[in-house]
Amino acid sequence: MKPVILSAALTGALADRRQCPAIPYTAQEIAAEARRSLEAGASIVHVHARQEDGKPAFDVASYARIDEQLKQNCPQAIINYSTGAINVDRETRIGHIRALRPAMAALNMGSMNYAIFSSKQRRFVHDHVFSNPFGDIQFYLEAMNEAGTLPEMECFDSGHIHNVDPLREMGLLGTPLLYSLVMGVLGGIPATVRDLLHLVQSLPAEALWQCIGIGMVQWQLLPTAVTLGGNVRVGLEDNFYVSEGKMATSNGDLVAKAVRMIEDVGGRVATPAEARQMLGMAPLATA
Amino acid sequence: MKPVILSAALTGALADRRQCPAIPYTAQEIAAEARRSLEAGASIVHVHARQEDGKPAFDVASYARIDEQLKQNCPQAIINYSTGAINVDRETRIGHIRALRPAMAALNMGSMNYAIFSSKQRRFVHDHVFSNPFGDIQFYLEAMNEAGTLPEMECFDSGHIHNVDPLREMGLLGTPLLYSLVMGVLGGIPATVRDLLHLVQSLPAEALWQCIGIGMVQWQLLPTAVTLGGNVRVGLEDNFYVSEGKMATSNGDLVAKAVRMIEDVGGRVATPAEARQMLGMAPLATA
Amino acid sequence: MKPVILSAALTGALADRRQCPAIPYTAQEIAAEARRSLEAGASIVHVHARQEDGKPAFDVASYARIDEQLKQNCPQAIINYSTGAINVDRETRIGHIRALRPAMAALNMGSMNYAIFSSKQRRFVHDHVFSNPFGDIQFYLEAMNEAGTLPEMECFDSGHIHNVDPLREMGLLGTPLLYSLVMGVLGGIPATVRDLLHLVQSLPAEALWQCIGIGMVQWQLLPTAVTLGGNVRVGLEDNFYVSEGKMATSNGDLVAKAVRMIEDVGGRVATPAEARQMLGMAPLATA
Amino acid sequence: MKPVILSAALTGALADRRQCPAIPYTAQEIAAEARRSLEAGASIVHVHARQEDGKPAFDVASYARIDEQLKQNCPQAIINYSTGAINVDRETRIGHIRALRPAMAALNMGSMNYAIFSSKQRRFVHDHVFSNPFGDIQFYLEAMNEAGTLPEMECFDSGHIHNVDPLREMGLLGTPLLYSLVMGVLGGIPATVRDLLHLVQSLPAEALWQCIGIGMVQWQLLPTAVTLGGNVRVGLEDNFYVSEGKMATSNGDLVAKAVRMIEDVGGRVATPAEARQMLGMAPLATA
Repeated sequence: MKPVILSAALTGALADRRQCPAIPYTAQEIAAEARRSLEAGASIVHVHARQEDGKPAFDVASYARIDEQLKQNCPQAIINYSTGAINVDRETRIGHIRALRPAMAALNMGSMNYAIFSSKQRRFVHDHVFSNPFGDIQFYLEAMNEAGTLPEMECFDSGHIHNVDPLREMGLLGTPLLYSLVMGVLGGIPATVRDLLHLVQSLPAEALWQCIGIGMVQWQLLPTAVTLGGNVRVGLEDNFYVSEGKMATSNGDLVAKAVRMIEDVGGRVATPAEARQMLGMAPLATA
Repeated sequence: MKPVILSAALTGALADRRQCPAIPYTAQEIAAEARRSLEAGASIVHVHARQEDGKPAFDVASYARIDEQLKQNCPQAIINYSTGAINVDRETRIGHIRALRPAMAALNMGSMNYAIFSSKQRRFVHDHVFSNPFGDIQFYLEAMNEAGTLPEMECFDSGHIHNVDPLREMGLLGTPLLYSLVMGVLGGIPATVRDLLHLVQSLPAEALWQCIGIGMVQWQLLPTAVTLGGNVRVGLEDNFYVSEGKMATSNGDLVAKAVRMIEDVGGRVATPAEARQMLGMAPLATA
Repeated sequence: MKPVILSAALTGALADRRQCPAIPYTAQEIAAEARRSLEAGASIVHVHARQEDGKPAFDVASYARIDEQLKQNCPQAIINYSTGAINVDRETRIGHIRALRPAMAALNMGSMNYAIFSSKQRRFVHDHVFSNPFGDIQFYLEAMNEAGTLPEMECFDSGHIHNVDPLREMGLLGTPLLYSLVMGVLGGIPATVRDLLHLVQSLPAEALWQCIGIGMVQWQLLPTAVTLGGNVRVGLEDNFYVSEGKMATSNGDLVAKAVRMIEDVGGRVATPAEARQMLGMAPLATA
Repeated sequence: MKPVILSAALTGALADRRQCPAIPYTAQEIAAEARRSLEAGASIVHVHARQEDGKPAFDVASYARIDEQLKQNCPQAIINYSTGAINVDRETRIGHIRALRPAMAALNMGSMNYAIFSSKQRRFVHDHVFSNPFGDIQFYLEAMNEAGTLPEMECFDSGHIHNVDPLREMGLLGTPLLYSLVMGVLGGIPATVRDLLHLVQSLPAEALWQCIGIGMVQWQLLPTAVTLGGNVRVGLEDNFYVSEGKMATSNGDLVAKAVRMIEDVGGRVATPAEARQMLGMAPLATA
């Protein structure tokens, strides 16, 4: 079994500290969480910027502060910035990529409903259209190509995987092809083993991929994903709980559990240097 | 094997007579195509309204003219009107359902990109976001419930099937549950046997469903769909060709081929009266 | 879609003329059925020898008579002899291959129960162990290799497909790898679309394969098999019926239906010359 | 998630102490291993009898000694005896079931090759036909029914699952229906996630089932099996290794790892009392 690349999605954009006190807001907090995650076994940190009060930030300056802190406190980390947002113009969504040229960035591969339904209240507590027409995807991808940023193609359903094909025909994608299978968002594919296997069978043979399970169901998908040859993402953006009733006190708790589960199925976690090599990135310059 | 309900999608909204001369525009033409389809074996006619010049029409009057012609020329047909449109307000999208109370209407179960890519030109020749947030779906569904119209839930990917669940929890859906699996639109799930099996496995056990393949690939999906216990839709909205290089001269040509293929795998086509019963509709009053 | 190679299994060993009057027994009858099958579109004829009274024959002389008739009456046919038998010693099972060096021969890839259950009588009317330990498979395969005979590897379940792997490691198999997926025998895998897809997904990427459905269910599997890129076998050995209640009057009837169904999903049938090329065989010498 | 029933297959029949020093031979050793397994979380102990020197024993007296020791040292254990053997007559294979009336016994549901291939030596180091014609299966099942023993139906491939159906039609099987999916024996289905999902999809809706993975690959199958709603078996019969290079010093080591992995995906292990209830068995009488 090849080494498994672990990503930590440190903070996200939706949840706040009332829901989970460990969620980092400031650049310093984010960098501290990145360090804890790398110490526990992660190689990649996926980051959304936050304002002081925890609301999402999309401006370059916020990302620049984070970038500086990450590079200072956690130089081995492979940095991966979000570009996803609802009701934010596309130039803003890509500005920090142009400015900071991170190693990786998320590229959302299609449109969908993005919703939360409360069974208790019997109503939708969130109900958005996450809009990513091909014109926008192409726009973001060209910006990433200019920035030398590897796109992490986020696929929330079968169609999103297929959406990659015309972009390949247009010559906009090189290697490696890196797919994220995001499972369990209402509006996208459910988070079951059968659905995961279906998505994996939909990928091109040469693809690299990771599984992103939303909510505690991620612990059910993780061993299957690793067994099928995939990488995995955990972190407070996706799930607060180490186990039923036990909330994580840091992203490091979630990464540590992921490492144990990877080892229990016979795998091992890639080091950041191995991850860089597997992703076709140059090794870090040594001082 | 239970009888197979055949739907004919007579005209659609996108293609025109330069592409396929048999596409009906006027109420008279649509009713004539409906009759040919029923004579060949269809039970349900799925209809979009057209203006005189073939452009899509969304007004009640256009649908009312069609409704009158259909009932006069083709009284056995189970009438199914579209409600799908891009950049049309939701009251307009549902107006003809409120006014005409058809037996069935299409209900689009999620958002997605809806695009066409030209491999030859290496560019997207259509690139739309087909936007159907849950609030809109609920709005259309409540209108259908008031009109006594059975919703035909159009699902373009795994997530759309799953989107039905909260509406059931809200008590907005009765029986039968009627899913259409629309396959082969760029932005949605591809049209392969493996994808079809996946979607069918995603349905609730008690569901009724039909397969809608876009393009000639529909002939590949049809026998698998029938074998798996599904119904099927054909028609000029979905595909112009009876076989490679042989364009249909009427929807009836496509229905006739579907009937032969259903019989070749050991099935038989439901009569309109059987279809009504299977769909939980009252039988037609006899004069 | 690449051309589809059609095999006709002309007679089999189990059924007799009381069950189906068209089953050929003598060499002349078998050759006449081969000719009808090729005229209808088949390229390969799969043959079991019969005694005068229809009982199975395993002796070389019986096969030699057939071989002579086939070559005389049906020279384009690709000849494929059975080697399967229950309670027959292995030297006898392979003797005609050594003697006649046919282009192809069936190689059964594992052991299994081979039974028929009568739901009406609520008892097993046949109950055999079809015994093919690896030692025997290796023995037959080495004889085929010496004879220049291409093995058609008959797989009745997932494990049989996997059984090919050690023989490849031993260097006993060249190219092409030719798998037959035999479905619907009690003791082996059932004849459903889901099971077929599973078997196809179990094959190595470079494999050639055909689907063999036992009973009328073969008409359900055929279009899926063709759509998935497979070849197909029909014939009186596998199924007597063109459709419910309509028994075939010749293997040609079954082949003709298969051709129509292949064309209906957009495929076309390979000529014997194309089939030879696809199977890596030398073209026929022309006089 | 419902509680997961853990079985421990304590000793098996093939491996010996040169291969794994912890394998128990005597009745005392077997009972001690049973106790360790129950302490670690198992409910069911699956037992083959051994002679003093470790060779397999099939006589009633050997099983009677084990039975006495188990009941004395490990009264909560649900006892499950093997009936599988190659080249042993069927009366011998079932004698201990008739005599000792265990709560459960293994019932092998079909025939297959049962082999081991050495890639290093490029030869088969075991090559057997595991012969279980329907007549024998019926014979064992009737004996189990008389003994009040619940059959644990061991299925090594898709066909074996299907083989259960005629026995149900004959009225020989009550509830619960208990399937074991044995994966990874050469001759049967391989031990992959895709194959496991296929087998689970082949089961009747009301079935109880467990996954038995042969070799270290069992750790890869375990979380998927639990997530799919299955029970699991571990133990020295199936696998010696807790992890790469780390041999178990007792069945308890393997059970402990299984418990941790079950909990990591959000499940919990059934107590023996819960397992009894889930299997439809009467609770233990309390003194």
